[in-house]
Amino acid sequence: MRMRKKPNLAVRMERCSHIITANPTVYRGHWLEVFGYSELRIELGCGKGRFTVDVALSEPDVLFVALEKNASVMVIALERALEVGLQNVRFINAFAESLMEYFMPGEISRFYINFCDPWPSNRHTKRRLTNERFLSLYSQLLTPEGEVHFKTDDLQLFEFSLREFKRCGFKILEQTRHLHSSSGRLMTDYELRFAEQGIPIYECTTKNTVI
Amino acid sequence: MRMRKKPNLAVRMERCSHIITANPTVYRGHWLEVFGYSELRIELGCGKGRFTVDVALSEPDVLFVALEKNASVMVIALERALEVGLQNVRFINAFAESLMEYFMPGEISRFYINFCDPWPSNRHTKRRLTNERFLSLYSQLLTPEGEVHFKTDDLQLFEFSLREFKRCGFKILEQTRHLHSSSGRLMTDYELRFAEQGIPIYECTTKNTVI
Repeated sequence: MRMRKKPNLAVRMERCSHIITANPTVYRGHWLEVFGYSELRIELGCGKGRFTVDVALSEPDVLFVALEKNASVMVIALERALEVGLQNVRFINAFAESLMEYFMPGEISRFYINFCDPWPSNRHTKRRLTNERFLSLYSQLLTPEGEVHFKTDDLQLFEFSLREFKRCGFKILEQTRHLHSSSGRLMTDYELRFAEQGIPIYECTTKNTVI
Repeated sequence: MRMRKKPNLAVRMERCSHIITANPTVYRGHWLEVFGYSELRIELGCGKGRFTVDVALSEPDVLFVALEKNASVMVIALERALEVGLQNVRFINAFAESLMEYFMPGEISRFYINFCDPWPSNRHTKRRLTNERFLSLYSQLLTPEGEVHFKTDDLQLFEFSLREFKRCGFKILEQTRHLHSSSGRLMTDYELRFAEQGIPIYECTTKNTVI
């Protein structure tokens, strides 16, 4: 979705500047040490940040780094994180392509991918965040027992993703095709809306296998 | 100069994260409004920040944005700025190439270029920060009466720069070939060292002409 550039965006970003990581390459291999945590998890495409903020609140001993390429959307996530006074979250205004520049192989214990763009056309297969190219990146960056938690409302993308996970040596730990909102789980903004509308959500949890 | 990557660099960067601008493109056209100043000046290649910190201290009503591509060096500038409690300085970890993405034409009142890399070889003319390509960029970004203040210890670069300034429609307001340290002027780290050693410093001040 192309967003209109908000006029006061820079003012709002500036207020949150201390939780945006401007130079993630400098932190590569040092994330846990710099922030004093023992586990690092990444959300790819955090959008307005509902999920990252909720999960970070519920697991204060884990460091979360949320990537979002769209600054106009990310600013809402930043403000949410500040509002609840989170200490264990940092944001990077970037796309998943650059992951290897920001993180060291074995540094990450879990990736979250929530309702990413399905890129339905065959021409755009390579842009899907569960494409082989990306999965191989995640696999390298994850700890040997590291996990990828993937959620979507797009059945085609879900089936594509399951195939890709298997093909790339990820072990499917769990999968569901009728995820309900009643289970008290953490939800993204999209998921909340879909759940209200009774739209099915597909989810799988996969585990890295040592290369 | 290629710097060894300092192991605690990320820890030090993180302490200064609120004065690093992670998303300068979002601030484009809004710098003065966001920070509440009426004048914006840029130092290109601030290095360890002696000049930027000193000039920002002496002109608290002006907003200074310092660019430095080398994070290992910039962190010293950041720490200096924090140590003296500067409010009117922000840092961008980037190269001059990206200026047009970060600033709007007419947004900048002055550029400072202090002891930039002379790139002595003819093959590297285009990399010199006073090359025609860069001067045309500065000219667009400057206010109609905007200035470029240029200083170097390299006579060849100085002469090249004077030619380029004239060729690109900049008016030379002042020039000197025997700048001394005794005048109470603000100096960079390099300049201090050169002055101590009696090495001549060349300087010129030029003015933008409306295009």
